[in-house]
Amino acid sequence: MKHRIVTISREFGSGGRTVGRMLADKLGISCYDSELIEKIALESGFSESYIKDNEDSTHGRFMYSHFSSHSFLPSNDVYLWKFQCKIIRELVDKGPCVIVGRCADYILKDTADLLTVFIHADIKFRADRIVNVYGATDTDPIQRVKQMDKQRAAYHRFYTDTKWGRAQDYHVCLDSGVLGIEKCVDILSQLY
Amino acid sequence: MKHRIVTISREFGSGGRTVGRMLADKLGISCYDSELIEKIALESGFSESYIKDNEDSTHGRFMYSHFSSHSFLPSNDVYLWKFQCKIIRELVDKGPCVIVGRCADYILKDTADLLTVFIHADIKFRADRIVNVYGATDTDPIQRVKQMDKQRAAYHRFYTDTKWGRAQDYHVCLDSGVLGIEKCVDILSQLY
Repeated sequence: MKHRIVTISREFGSGGRTVGRMLADKLGISCYDSELIEKIALESGFSESYIKDNEDSTHGRFMYSHFSSHSFLPSNDVYLWKFQCKIIRELVDKGPCVIVGRCADYILKDTADLLTVFIHADIKFRADRIVNVYGATDTDPIQRVKQMDKQRAAYHRFYTDTKWGRAQDYHVCLDSGVLGIEKCVDILSQLY
Repeated sequence: MKHRIVTISREFGSGGRTVGRMLADKLGISCYDSELIEKIALESGFSESYIKDNEDSTHGRFMYSHFSSHSFLPSNDVYLWKFQCKIIRELVDKGPCVIVGRCADYILKDTADLLTVFIHADIKFRADRIVNVYGATDTDPIQRVKQMDKQRAAYHRFYTDTKWGRAQDYHVCLDSGVLGIEKCVDILSQLY
């Protein structure tokens, strides 16, 4: 692996995606997030909305299971996961970049010159932020955040067999609610 | 609470105590660690070695229990815990400082202007470091690190009813093995 890569895992509403974009801008490197979804979608034949749904749910029937192998997964899910791994490895071969989400830290571990990051924040901060950024819905924002946390944790657990948000699995974990998004970007750009 | 306080939780061998001392030196503020033990020891009547043993074991019979109340603790342990809380609160009233270990983040939560930090590192890095810093013993250093991790996790769980090393419980978590101890000090001094 030739390039320095930053992977950002993030709690919903923590601003981790914004941190990733601002960091990439500051460093003058690429940031892959929705672009990555699109690329996977185009090349795999999966629709963009299917992949988005898939990342944030792993489908209700598997959500709390702790399977470590993929043998119980429907073939579409296995195919999507494998394709996602392939795409991410190709992207990091192209040049230094920031990758937000997609278990990229797990996919690239032991193979890339990585800086692995986890961005989190207090639930109240995140609930307020999703209303500001994505708008209000009929569902209470605290419930939206809790539901998404559960789904991301389940997805992460399902595909990586590790516990999401365990400090030891990242080089840097930052509370964006307390430190502020710009300060997070500053720290990460210094560490890069 | 008038003063800015840094609390550092740390995995054994990660250099968290060194980070704390270097940070305090850089900021020109106090660092409490063995000093704190001594202070507790002198004022409580507990011997220094008893307190050291107590932090790192919570006594074998309780090690893996998940009691959330203190009603099952022997009275000496309850007394020590309460006294430790009192001492820490008094220390932070005196001025800005760094406190390493002692569940200070938990003791001070909601009451102090805190920066809560968790320092961790790969087990190989920590095993090598404890041999360099503390010297070799008859026990394999990897086993020494694992044993101490278990004990600290049990102590933390026992007294705080939270899981040690959960990223969301700290403002900043840093991998001292990958980032280096001096870089950790730099980041924390900027965030202070």
